[in-house]
Amino acid sequence: MPNPTAAILIIGDEILSGRTRDSNMHFLAGELARVGIDLREVRVVADAREAIIAAVNALRQAWDHVFTSGGIGPTHDDITADCIAEALGVGIGVREDARALLAVHYTRSGLDFNAARMRMARIPEGARLIENPISVAPGFSIGNVHVMAGVPNVFQAMVAGLLPTLTGGEPLLSQTLRILRPEGEIAGPLGALAAEYPDLSMGSYPFNRDGVMGANVVIRGTDGVRVEAAMLRLAALFPP
Amino acid sequence: MPNPTAAILIIGDEILSGRTRDSNMHFLAGELARVGIDLREVRVVADAREAIIAAVNALRQAWDHVFTSGGIGPTHDDITADCIAEALGVGIGVREDARALLAVHYTRSGLDFNAARMRMARIPEGARLIENPISVAPGFSIGNVHVMAGVPNVFQAMVAGLLPTLTGGEPLLSQTLRILRPEGEIAGPLGALAAEYPDLSMGSYPFNRDGVMGANVVIRGTDGVRVEAAMLRLAALFPP
Repeated sequence: MPNPTAAILIIGDEILSGRTRDSNMHFLAGELARVGIDLREVRVVADAREAIIAAVNALRQAWDHVFTSGGIGPTHDDITADCIAEALGVGIGVREDARALLAVHYTRSGLDFNAARMRMARIPEGARLIENPISVAPGFSIGNVHVMAGVPNVFQAMVAGLLPTLTGGEPLLSQTLRILRPEGEIAGPLGALAAEYPDLSMGSYPFNRDGVMGANVVIRGTDGVRVEAAMLRLAALFPP
Repeated sequence: MPNPTAAILIIGDEILSGRTRDSNMHFLAGELARVGIDLREVRVVADAREAIIAAVNALRQAWDHVFTSGGIGPTHDDITADCIAEALGVGIGVREDARALLAVHYTRSGLDFNAARMRMARIPEGARLIENPISVAPGFSIGNVHVMAGVPNVFQAMVAGLLPTLTGGEPLLSQTLRILRPEGEIAGPLGALAAEYPDLSMGSYPFNRDGVMGANVVIRGTDGVRVEAAMLRLAALFPP
């Protein structure tokens, strides 16, 4: 069975303006690889209704899972939940279980549960909540779209709760060989080897640090025996 | 005159697999903001022909500029130049000026100018070269698509050469106020202020570090007087 596929949609003007460096993409890419979900595409769009709706619809139709990050807080520019509802053609409103979670949290914290905070209980109809153990306001899954917060520690906690509930395929195994030769000399033999192992992916990632030139060659696949066999061949081609 | 718009297309399995953390998006986002080009979208796709072609065509039709990163090295998985040529419907072959640059470089370095390295002189017809002061193999611009290397120091050097050649609009000005209150208390007044200044963008970026809770509120626009006026109003709403 092939692994499920996925896309990440990052929603936020602050990433596009260069003000904030996104960390959620790299974090989730690593987690998905670990559980055997193939990340195939990432998009970053502005906090803009049409952009979010178009991206959600393109990605949910193309891939098995879509994970979104950002735009579910209390401020006027947090429009993700409304856009997801519109993209999926369902209604949205304050949901009692989400409202109750927030009410308990703000009462305990001695903070005012005002209209802005109540926005965070707006959940599209038919969604399942994603637990937020850090700041309570939940994410949600609807269809194959999983909507999470942009703040990195909250995003990471939501991912930790969500991933075990998704069906993972076989984990993707990888082995890396660090080869201290210029990539131009690695390219020919590596291309020939890749052609012999069409079921594996072989990538070459060059580096040039402090005058040392080389490449990390990564072989990936779901069959560990095949990955091992290809790596032994590669190591024999480039003895240290 | 509105600012020109732009997208970034990052090409690379190594980013999607979580192995490498991309840094080119954040770097170029900052540079584009500095020169007054509005970054509106980013996509990350695999080293896969159909994915690259579809993304290039979608982005070059939607935005004024498309900047790509990755896939122009010597190995078999470096297919960006061929995909760009196919997307734009032009031919591609080894170009004499690019070949000459590489020949001089490899002769000087005492390295073999082999078939794999010759691939880096393949340039779509009608393109303009983008200088690579670090490792010589050039990038190129064709139409509104600017194709650059993925290795960060090479990417940065190419951007430095390319950007002054593009027409920039008015620089986007921004001011930031750090407000030490929970975002839920900022949201109401900030939303009302944003409604009064439809020509400016106001974003709220919450943080919660070491028990200190607050948000950085960023006001952006091309008219410095308007940005300043809105920021004074905001500061009056949230005295320290």
